[in-house]
Amino acid sequence: MRIDSVDFFYASMPDVTLEADGSQDALLVRVTTDDGHVGWGECEASPLVSVAAFVTPRSHGVCQPVSASVLGERLDGPTDIARIASLVERNSMDLLQAPHTFSGIEIALWDLLGRAREVPVWSLLGYERSEPKLPYASMLFGATPAETFERGTAVVARGFRAVKFGWGPFGTAGAGIDAEHLDAARAALGPDRHLLVDAGQIWNRDVDAAAERLDALERNGVTWLEEPFGASEYDAYADLAARAATVRIAGGEGAHEEAMARNLIRFGGVGFLQIDTGRIGGIGPAKRVADVAVASGVTYVNHTFTSHLALSASLQPYAGLAEHRICEYPADPKQLAVDITRNHLLPDANGEIAAPDSPGLGMEVDLAAIEPYLRTVELTVDGETLYSSPQPGPVLLA
Amino acid sequence: MRIDSVDFFYASMPDVTLEADGSQDALLVRVTTDDGHVGWGECEASPLVSVAAFVTPRSHGVCQPVSASVLGERLDGPTDIARIASLVERNSMDLLQAPHTFSGIEIALWDLLGRAREVPVWSLLGYERSEPKLPYASMLFGATPAETFERGTAVVARGFRAVKFGWGPFGTAGAGIDAEHLDAARAALGPDRHLLVDAGQIWNRDVDAAAERLDALERNGVTWLEEPFGASEYDAYADLAARAATVRIAGGEGAHEEAMARNLIRFGGVGFLQIDTGRIGGIGPAKRVADVAVASGVTYVNHTFTSHLALSASLQPYAGLAEHRICEYPADPKQLAVDITRNHLLPDANGEIAAPDSPGLGMEVDLAAIEPYLRTVELTVDGETLYSSPQPGPVLLA
Repeated sequence: MRIDSVDFFYASMPDVTLEADGSQDALLVRVTTDDGHVGWGECEASPLVSVAAFVTPRSHGVCQPVSASVLGERLDGPTDIARIASLVERNSMDLLQAPHTFSGIEIALWDLLGRAREVPVWSLLGYERSEPKLPYASMLFGATPAETFERGTAVVARGFRAVKFGWGPFGTAGAGIDAEHLDAARAALGPDRHLLVDAGQIWNRDVDAAAERLDALERNGVTWLEEPFGASEYDAYADLAARAATVRIAGGEGAHEEAMARNLIRFGGVGFLQIDTGRIGGIGPAKRVADVAVASGVTYVNHTFTSHLALSASLQPYAGLAEHRICEYPADPKQLAVDITRNHLLPDANGEIAAPDSPGLGMEVDLAAIEPYLRTVELTVDGETLYSSPQPGPVLLA
Repeated sequence: MRIDSVDFFYASMPDVTLEADGSQDALLVRVTTDDGHVGWGECEASPLVSVAAFVTPRSHGVCQPVSASVLGERLDGPTDIARIASLVERNSMDLLQAPHTFSGIEIALWDLLGRAREVPVWSLLGYERSEPKLPYASMLFGATPAETFERGTAVVARGFRAVKFGWGPFGTAGAGIDAEHLDAARAALGPDRHLLVDAGQIWNRDVDAAAERLDALERNGVTWLEEPFGASEYDAYADLAARAATVRIAGGEGAHEEAMARNLIRFGGVGFLQIDTGRIGGIGPAKRVADVAVASGVTYVNHTFTSHLALSASLQPYAGLAEHRICEYPADPKQLAVDITRNHLLPDANGEIAAPDSPGLGMEVDLAAIEPYLRTVELTVDGETLYSSPQPGPVLLA
């Protein structure tokens, strides 16, 4: 079959705030082949910019729009997905946004192929089964330690056995107040639940500033400290990892290519590697990175803060890795992220989730439900419309 | 003073071909302050996408449009430029295209500040003088070795003492034909001129494939082999550097943040570091990277394939480094790139160029001349115009 069309659906909450909450908007991608097969994917981050990267006029031979490497291409198996990815890498080498745009498309290609063959994507990746994962609730720190405690208590009441706090005020004031937040989080979770912390790159590459928090992290039994530094600050990562006694360093969500993720293992000394399939170029490169993690004794984890379509996509690359058990689970997404799919990956009686056993990604996108969130985009150059949003209504929903 | 407005001018040749020739289009940036000062910069790569990254609706707190960190900000000195750059880095962390967009703005801020203080940018960077540089003519390989020879002969006749061949067929067929191109290039240049080679990432991370070319590179006295691999493939860079006897490895043009350039020195074993101020975030980060290069015994080189506005910007970060002598010089740019500025950095009697001694970047943008190349862009979301090209005509040119 051949790729016939790629449609983008830009949806957002009516008000997008300055919270570090990635579930406030979404860019969904629908790929259709000439024989009528359909697949869905989701790009992480800035929808308008990612759409522009698909349709922009070319600047030169290796700064072409993503569309030039995708539309009309053959899609008969996983090797075609890798081949198309190589085309994008070459033809859009100088278009920085290209990997974010292509990630959603690549995910949709896997979904489409799985549906066409009536097998789950993880099976196409070579896994024999989808192993259960322990979801951690991904939360923002409260504005005060008391609020962090309240949030922790509330999420424990929902049954989560692992909780991550991140962003908010953490790292922005002194190490003393950060320690109070960590103490409050541990108090709320009790002694046995997993506590994880996300610093959101707050220290850039200041290892001493990060190290000031190590005592409070370790006395509270924090499993990992995530993204203390900029995504490519490998030396700083390695220095901090060497100074830590029990807490491991985590990172990788910023990787927009395989090499960045491999470098974080090779040079950064991370214990946990967190990959967002919506950024790294999709499921194929994420699977290859998971293989490197396994070979290196590093634990692979998904990064997901949006819909359950994105969650299923991000579980696939390590679905079959039984020992890589923990998974990120957006615990408080905006309603948009909930409404994107008809079905959801809900924790079972053991409090565990797994990548679906149904074909493709196993998720049903609910276009009717997201219609109220859809935003209309039009991009024109020299009066020619390069992109116009698919129109909601019966045709769209057919 | 405060930043009052940022205007983008998207210009391109009537036909943009698939050549690896980055001079086929341009995104010029004009920054104006509330007290009427003006500065100009240029972004490398995809104009429409970079404009979208300036105006896009925000996705969340760290995925904001670049405009959110720039418009209305104070600009009283170089520390303000660094402060604004930090804001962009934080507020647009998850917007991949942001560094390419901001690069042109940052360059314009330096130009503006230099003009306001009536000093060249290199002086604001702490250099005492602008040292002469030996320009190398940057050329594409011919389709055949004979054509490579002809191009080399023609560029030697123009007086260049250093020539770089790159892209085209190099690396795409066997090592044998590549050797013929290298022999032809050396034959054209004679024994004494510098010969440089740019592989344009053609081997991705296949060190053996690159190493097959080492004999022909070294017997032809090639100074550097540039970008054999993907921009972040540091292990492959280091492996090849260790296998080479006389040819040094060069890279860095793909760096879209300081850390990537530092990593190429720290982990990649390069002998030459090539930085494009239109990609790495502008002149400030490029200067800090030049400092690291000096401290590490690595030679800093500009990367420039577009206008002389971009050329002046890319010379500033190492203008005062007398021992870092070689510089990239677009030898065959498209007419657009020539027409962007009224004045040009032409080789003197010694065949050398230097960053101008006049205020700012020292270049005069010629809007009247580029008017025929301007492209009209309109971006709308939900019927609201987020961006509309500045209209050519008397108002624009005022």
